[in-house]
Amino acid sequence: MIKSECQIRVRYDEVDKMGYLYHGNYAKYFHIGRTELLRKIGFSDNELEKQNIILPVSEMNIKFIKPVFYDEVITVVSHLKEISGVRLRFFYQIFNQNNELVNQADMSVAFVDKISRKLIRIPQNIYDIIQSKINLT
Amino acid sequence: MIKSECQIRVRYDEVDKMGYLYHGNYAKYFHIGRTELLRKIGFSDNELEKQNIILPVSEMNIKFIKPVFYDEVITVVSHLKEISGVRLRFFYQIFNQNNELVNQADMSVAFVDKISRKLIRIPQNIYDIIQSKINLT
Amino acid sequence: MIKSECQIRVRYDEVDKMGYLYHGNYAKYFHIGRTELLRKIGFSDNELEKQNIILPVSEMNIKFIKPVFYDEVITVVSHLKEISGVRLRFFYQIFNQNNELVNQADMSVAFVDKISRKLIRIPQNIYDIIQSKINLT
Amino acid sequence: MIKSECQIRVRYDEVDKMGYLYHGNYAKYFHIGRTELLRKIGFSDNELEKQNIILPVSEMNIKFIKPVFYDEVITVVSHLKEISGVRLRFFYQIFNQNNELVNQADMSVAFVDKISRKLIRIPQNIYDIIQSKINLT
Repeated sequence: MIKSECQIRVRYDEVDKMGYLYHGNYAKYFHIGRTELLRKIGFSDNELEKQNIILPVSEMNIKFIKPVFYDEVITVVSHLKEISGVRLRFFYQIFNQNNELVNQADMSVAFVDKISRKLIRIPQNIYDIIQSKINLT
Repeated sequence: MIKSECQIRVRYDEVDKMGYLYHGNYAKYFHIGRTELLRKIGFSDNELEKQNIILPVSEMNIKFIKPVFYDEVITVVSHLKEISGVRLRFFYQIFNQNNELVNQADMSVAFVDKISRKLIRIPQNIYDIIQSKINLT
Repeated sequence: MIKSECQIRVRYDEVDKMGYLYHGNYAKYFHIGRTELLRKIGFSDNELEKQNIILPVSEMNIKFIKPVFYDEVITVVSHLKEISGVRLRFFYQIFNQNNELVNQADMSVAFVDKISRKLIRIPQNIYDIIQSKINLT
Repeated sequence: MIKSECQIRVRYDEVDKMGYLYHGNYAKYFHIGRTELLRKIGFSDNELEKQNIILPVSEMNIKFIKPVFYDEVITVVSHLKEISGVRLRFFYQIFNQNNELVNQADMSVAFVDKISRKLIRIPQNIYDIIQSKINLT
C-alpha cells in the first residue's frame, strides 16, 4: 500500500447545526488526501486533467464512527491499496486530536477520458510507478 | 418499504470542473430525500431537533453509475426500508431526465440525544408509525 | 427592470452551527435567481456556456438583515436592472415566510469568452431582448 | 489595523465548471482569515460561541478582480480595521502565486447573543485588546 497523511482544520462552513462536521463534507477531505497522495508519488490530478484525463469517483463507502467538531485539526490517512487496469482503490482513516479513529472509508476512482467520457486504461507510466510502490510496501 | 420521490434541479455551485455533479454533493440530495420522506409520514427532522433528537448518518454507501450534469432535473427516490431500535436504514435511487438510473445508495441514520450525544431508542410514536407503514407496503 | 421570483427551501447542509443559513450560501441562492430570470426571458446560462460564453460574477454586495433558518421556504426576488456593453447588473431581495425582508444584494455579472478568458460584448440578440424588456417595465 | 496572513490551497470541490474558484466560496476563505486573525490576538470564535457569543456577518462586499484556479495556493491577507461597540469591520485581500491581487473585500461582523439573537456590546476585554492593537499599528 502507498500511504500519505495530511492534516486539515475543520472550517466553520463545514459544520452543521448539530455542531458536527457535515457527513457530505468528508468526501472533500478524502479528495484532499487522494490529491496529496498522488502528488507525493509524482502525479498531479490537475496536470492529468489538462491532458483530458479525469478521475471521477465510482464508489464510496463511509463509516462515521465518532463526530468531528469545528476547529478540530484532524488527520486524514490515505492508502492507495489496489490498482486495476482502469481504477484505483483507496482506503481512508480519519483520526481526531486525541488520536481516536473517527471515520473510515474506501473509494474507487476511475480513469476517464474528459472528452468521450469513457473509461480508459491507466497510462503505463502511472501504472508502473503505482504498481512498483504498492508491491514495495 | 416507505417510498418518497422528489425532484431537484442541479445547481451551478454543485458541479465540478469535470462538469459533473460533485460526488460529495449527492449526500445533500439524499438528505433532502430523507427529510421529504419523513415529512410525508408526519415527521419533521427540524421539530425533532428542537426536542433534542438528532439524526446523524452512521454509514453511507454510494455507487456512481452515470454522471449528472448542470441544470438537469433529477429524481431522487428514497426508500425507508428498515427500522431497528435506534436506527433507520434508507435506500436511494437517482434517475436522470431520460429515466436512467444514475446513482444508488444506502444509508443508516441513528437517533441521538443532542445534549449527551448518545444513541437513544427511537420514540415509540415514531417507531409505531414507521413499523406499520413498512409492513403495509 | 426585469423581475423574477423563485422559492427555495433551506437545506440542512446550508445551515451553520449558529443555526443560520451560512452567509456564504446566499450567493448560491442569487445564482439560482439569476438563472431562473434568464430562463424566463429565453436564455439558458448552460446553453451560453456550451457556446463558450461564461458569466462570472465581478462584484457582489450583500446585506444580511435577519437570519434565515433551516427548512424555511424563502422567496428570492431577482431584478435585472442594468445592461452595459459587457455586464449585467442584478439586484436581489430575499423574503422569509412572514414576508419580512431578510437579505438584500446587488451583483455584477460579466460576459467572458471561456477560452480566452477575456471580456466580450454581450451578443446582440441577448442585448436587444434585455434592453427592450428593461425599458418596458 | 491588525493584520494576519494565511495560505490556502484551492480544493477540487470549490471550483466550478468554468474552472474558477466559485464566487460563493470566497466567503469561506475570508472566514478562515478572520478566525486566524482572532486566534493570533488571543481569541477563539469557537470559545466565544461556547459562551453564547456568536459573530454573524452583517455585510459583505466583494470585488472579483482575477479568477483563481484549482490547486493554486493563494494568500488571504485579513485586516481588522475598525471596532465599534457591537461590530468589527474587516478588510481582505487575496493574492495568487504570482503575487497578483485577485480579490478584495470588506465585511462587518456583529456580536450577537446566541440565545436571544440580539446584538450585544463587545465584551470589554476583547474591546480593549483590539482597540489597543488597532491604535498601535
